[in-house]
Order: sequence, then structure tokens, then C-alpha cells
Amino acid sequence: MDFTVETATAAVVESFRNTKDPRLREVMESLTRHLHAFVRDIEPTMEEWETAIDFLTAVGHTCDDTRQEFILLSDVLGVSMLVETLNGTEQGTESTVLGPFHMTESPRRELGDSIDLLGTGRPCVISGRVTGADGTPLANAELDVWQCTEDGFYDVQQPDVQPPGNGRGLFRTDDEGRYWFRTVVPSHYPIPTDGPVGRLLEATGRHPYRPAHVHFIASAVGRRPVTTHVFVADSPYIDSDAVFAVKRGLITDFSELHDAQEADRFGVTAPFAHATFDIVLTTAPEATP
Amino acid sequence: MDFTVETATAAVVESFRNTKDPRLREVMESLTRHLHAFVRDIEPTMEEWETAIDFLTAVGHTCDDTRQEFILLSDVLGVSMLVETLNGTEQGTESTVLGPFHMTESPRRELGDSIDLLGTGRPCVISGRVTGADGTPLANAELDVWQCTEDGFYDVQQPDVQPPGNGRGLFRTDDEGRYWFRTVVPSHYPIPTDGPVGRLLEATGRHPYRPAHVHFIASAVGRRPVTTHVFVADSPYIDSDAVFAVKRGLITDFSELHDAQEADRFGVTAPFAHATFDIVLTTAPEATP
Repeated sequence: MDFTVETATAAVVESFRNTKDPRLREVMESLTRHLHAFVRDIEPTMEEWETAIDFLTAVGHTCDDTRQEFILLSDVLGVSMLVETLNGTEQGTESTVLGPFHMTESPRRELGDSIDLLGTGRPCVISGRVTGADGTPLANAELDVWQCTEDGFYDVQQPDVQPPGNGRGLFRTDDEGRYWFRTVVPSHYPIPTDGPVGRLLEATGRHPYRPAHVHFIASAVGRRPVTTHVFVADSPYIDSDAVFAVKRGLITDFSELHDAQEADRFGVTAPFAHATFDIVLTTAPEATP
Repeated sequence: MDFTVETATAAVVESFRNTKDPRLREVMESLTRHLHAFVRDIEPTMEEWETAIDFLTAVGHTCDDTRQEFILLSDVLGVSMLVETLNGTEQGTESTVLGPFHMTESPRRELGDSIDLLGTGRPCVISGRVTGADGTPLANAELDVWQCTEDGFYDVQQPDVQPPGNGRGLFRTDDEGRYWFRTVVPSHYPIPTDGPVGRLLEATGRHPYRPAHVHFIASAVGRRPVTTHVFVADSPYIDSDAVFAVKRGLITDFSELHDAQEADRFGVTAPFAHATFDIVLTTAPEATP
């Protein structure tokens, strides 16, 4: 039978009939239906199809050991947030995007250590507790944190300026589920604009900025891990994040504290910014009886 | 407002509101709706999303000066054929996929020249006429042809074995719209299987073969160009082309001729294969009054 606009989708779906993995078959069939529906909807010219091929190729060529342009593309199309949200839980701390900069292992640090190795930003302490949904403190929970500098760059973006691991740390909560570490207040920043995703934002009149935030991945034995951010309240772009990652429950005051005693307790000098970010981890599905 | 599964699509569509080019805005809005519908349909786990990112990145990294893995992906998903078919005309010669091997300029050749520079295959002559829909011969029409060897490889795939331009030629029709050239009968062949698209076919139980064919791009002043193939009748895989490109009207007999006089006329020795492929080019839209 000839391949026509009417028979195209059925022919391609049918080609996947021998897929052994039923989930892969389901994904490929759904992909075919939605992708063909998109093509029939916009009826691209051959030149537009070539532009799309060139764009995807450029996105691929922009990916390397320290840059993930396809994650960036997924982010600006809201796909990353949609997937995160579909995988979220009702009870635990809300999740948000992983982002493209979680590409090196964070260095292990002790509670109270600073993740800021430059010493030039606005001093800040972030502290909180990791608990279950019922409030039980989770000792020995692991927190992987990473953030940009006050200039808005991650260490991997500035190998000549920042030592590796700047702005990153791997912490474990104490016996009462508490954690605290020192850092600097992160800045809002543009996602990388010198690649094809940046050119797409430019062509569509979108700004590339993300509001200031610190990334967290929190995990504990028997708990569902959560990938999230703590957002700095009142940061520019808090209402128009280029990657749609803001959830109200994750916006946190970075209050200016002038209390010398408090400062002393955390090993900083007043004034300093202090954010409290408590994290709730629900029971992992496989741990449920 | 929080980003939720329910509000996600509207939020991303809304982000494109300032796109200056109305066509780009239409494409991005449609892409967002269909892509989100796909994601909501399959509800990917985070691991599946990462697998998709890794797959697309690998496809990008496989593209280089002589290989276009994204075209291959578009081909095996039937997207290339769908776009070709949407751009086809009712009256002219049917179009089919460009394929990933039209990446070097074909050498200019004279009518009757051979595009086979190896001299090892089954001798073959392809001839025909290029006309308008009303049968008017089109003199000086340009034919860009390319094909694989009898072993199933294009020149760019075998830089150590084939001289550049083997199997390729750029011809012009004579005053009566006629063309003829010598070659060898092409083989059916597998699309490249050593990359991510090959692994996808393997995982989905699909064979990678294409039936034997010769590519043509035919163009003439004031005419709509056509990208097509002439398919060798009775080739293996003529009913299950991995890229869905076969149209019945393009299947052509490569008849075995034993007539020494006919052979002489084309500068070959009998027996030889002969295929007749006439091409109809419709009037270009911009040339219509």
C-alpha cells in the first residue's frame, strides 16, 4: 500500500509491532501518533523540515562534558517541569527541574562547611531539617546542593575563574535530621544564550533569565528522593522563570540577620542572609509493604 | 501561578506570545501542545526522560560532515515521508525522501556518461524524458542523481574504497527533454546501524533495509522541483522499506536487454539492465500568473 498522509501513522505504528519491551512499544507508538499529528498540524515546507533537522543537530553538537543543550531545550519547552510534576508526590517537598548543571559530583563536606570557595559574595547560611511526612527526623539523609555565584555562573561554566566544586556540596543530616551550611546568596542568571536554545529564545522574544535559587537533591534510605530548588524570595524573574520551575512552596525568605551571636553560631560575621528550608521525604514506593 | 500538569501547556504556549514571526509562533505553539500531549500520554519516569535526553544527544553526536543521524531518525519515524507527501503535487512525479546521503555536490557529467567509477557492478542504463504535466519536453532540465554500489554503500561511506563522486552525477536534458546515463544496478542496503538510530531499530525488532533505488532531484526553470527515487522492481524489501519511502508509481523494471545494437547505442555491452524513468515537473507556484 502506498504511503499517504492518511495511512502514514498506521504504517509507522505497525512497524513497531515486534518490539519486545512492551513499554518501549507503547512509547514509540505514542511518539509516532503525536509527532505525526504535529507534522500534519503545521504542514512544514521542506525548508522548514531542514531547519528543524539543522536545529536539532546544532543542539546535539552543543552538548559536551560540561554542557547539556538538550536538557536546556527540554527545560525551555516546559517538558522537564512537566515530567518532574508528573513524578511528584502530594505530601513531600515539591520537586522542580534538575537543570543542565548537575554534571560533576559534588564534593563531600561537613555540616557547617562553606560551599563558597571564592569568598566574594554576600555571606549566607542555609539550614533546615529533613523529615518524613509525619515529621519524623531523618538522620543521615543526603543533600546534594549546587548553585551559581553572585555573578550567576556555575563552576563548570568558569573553569578558569572558579575552582572545581565551587558552589557544590554533599552533606549528611545529623542525628536530629538537621543540616546547615555556609554559602553566598546566589544570583538570578541567564541560561546559556550562545547556543541554539539561546537563539530560539531570542527569535521567540523570550528572556533567558532564571530567578535566584539553590539546587537540592535530597535522599534517604527507604525514602523517595526529591530534586528541587530553594528560590530566593523577591529575586528578579521570580514570576517569569525561563524554564517554568518556580513553585510557590519553594520560595523562601533569605532574611538579613544582624545578630552577632547567631552569626557566631554558624561561623559567619553579621550581617548575613539566612534561609530556612525544611525538606519532607515521603516513603519510597518499593519500601511500602 | 504554580506550574501544574493542568496549567503547564498554557503557560509555555503563553511564553511564545511575543514571537515576531507569526509562522514561528504557530510552529512553537503547536510543538508545545503536541509535545506536552505526548508527555502526558506516556507519563515518563525521570529515568525514561534521561534516556530520551541521552538518545537525542547521541543522535546529535553521530552527525558529522558525512553522516546525518537526525535525518535518519526522521526517516525511520516516517516523518520525512510525511513531510514529502504533504509537499507533493497531484499531477507531477511523486516525491519521496531525500535521505541522509545527499551531502556532497554531484559532479557535472555529459549525457551518456557513467556515474560508476569502479566498473565492477552489473551494467545498467537509465534513460527517460523530463516533461511538463501536459507532455511538453523540458530542455535543459537538471537531474541530480545518486545511488549506492552493488555492495550497498554510498561513496561517502567508503572514502577508502570509492573515489568521491562515485555513483553521483549532475545531468542536463537535451533539446527534447531526454536524458540517459550509464551506471550499475544498485543494491538494497541497510541504513547505518552502528549509531543510535540503528540501536532503536534493533530494540524495536525492525530491520534496517531499504529496497534498491536511485535518487533523483529533478528541476527546471519555472517548475516545481521533485525529490524522488526510481525503485528497482522485485528488489528485496520493496514491501517493507525501513524509511517508508516506496510509492507504487516509482517502482520500475530494470529489464535485462540482450540486444547488441541497443547496447552499442548506450556505450555498454549486452547483456545490460535498462530502466526507463520519465519525470513530470509541474509549474512552480511562483510561476503561476
